[in-house]
Amino acid sequence: MENEKIELLKTYLSLYINPMTVLQSQKAGDSPYVILDVRNAPAPVKKVQIKGAQALAAKDLADHLGELDKSKTYVVYDWNSGTILGQQALLILLQAGFKAFELAGALEGWQGMNLPVENV
Amino acid sequence: MENEKIELLKTYLSLYINPMTVLQSQKAGDSPYVILDVRNAPAPVKKVQIKGAQALAAKDLADHLGELDKSKTYVVYDWNSGTILGQQALLILLQAGFKAFELAGALEGWQGMNLPVENV
Amino acid sequence: MENEKIELLKTYLSLYINPMTVLQSQKAGDSPYVILDVRNAPAPVKKVQIKGAQALAAKDLADHLGELDKSKTYVVYDWNSGTILGQQALLILLQAGFKAFELAGALEGWQGMNLPVENV
Repeated sequence: MENEKIELLKTYLSLYINPMTVLQSQKAGDSPYVILDVRNAPAPVKKVQIKGAQALAAKDLADHLGELDKSKTYVVYDWNSGTILGQQALLILLQAGFKAFELAGALEGWQGMNLPVENV
Repeated sequence: MENEKIELLKTYLSLYINPMTVLQSQKAGDSPYVILDVRNAPAPVKKVQIKGAQALAAKDLADHLGELDKSKTYVVYDWNSGTILGQQALLILLQAGFKAFELAGALEGWQGMNLPVENV
Repeated sequence: MENEKIELLKTYLSLYINPMTVLQSQKAGDSPYVILDVRNAPAPVKKVQIKGAQALAAKDLADHLGELDKSKTYVVYDWNSGTILGQQALLILLQAGFKAFELAGALEGWQGMNLPVENV
């Protein structure tokens, strides 16, 4: 059972990337990360997004894979960690052969650490 | 590793059902879904529940399986996605051969989307 | 698929321990549990911690394993269930052969149930 627990944790953690990893890479320049806001909501409901994110709603993702770049690493985020939209988007990206992670803590965690956002 | 990540996401996501799926099915009539409120709390603490939910506390679930209907699909929910009560209840139901999901986002997510609740 | 769902839930749930299990064991005396606060934050940011917890930041954990006691069972917690720091710490402890769990609901859940905390 201990091995199963360790394997589950390893695989689960490999799905996620920490906000500071993304932010520090962006500050250093030439970052491989593209942040995708996959919330299924119009801009007036979203109000803000992570600074520099691209909006691509999870419900539209499968139809727009051709516009993505396989040399990049996609970091998807949703409202908070209680939703499954980010994981659904991540599954679509991984199944299509993209390098991708879900942002640990989602938008709520990013804002909780006072990291940069912008109006949408 | 990519295959393990994809398999984990697929299996994990198969445990959950989105609030809108349940709600739209109920509005269309003849819904297979029965929503179970599995919070281990008395009514004055719970105050409200999802509209039309049946209260069956996770701690009592194993003793009341005989009252459930195998032709239905049970949707369990707890306070929020940070607790494990919903997953414990889901495991009991799946092991007993019931069709069941955990409600993505739990009660907190349901209320965050202003979906219908009722006093208890 | 049902078997995979059940196995995932079993393994996932085996990573967690409920707050009341820890608290009741501590009240009964001679508890095997040692609560580790693994938040990577200085005391002024943390402000409070779970009563009786030991502070050992996740970022420092790998370098301090020699100070831990294999006869104990470690219960790690982070700010809330939306972060992955607790799971990262849990993985380090399990891989090093310690008995360990993550606290279900994290600090946020503990405080939400009005369980005892102390200033740091």
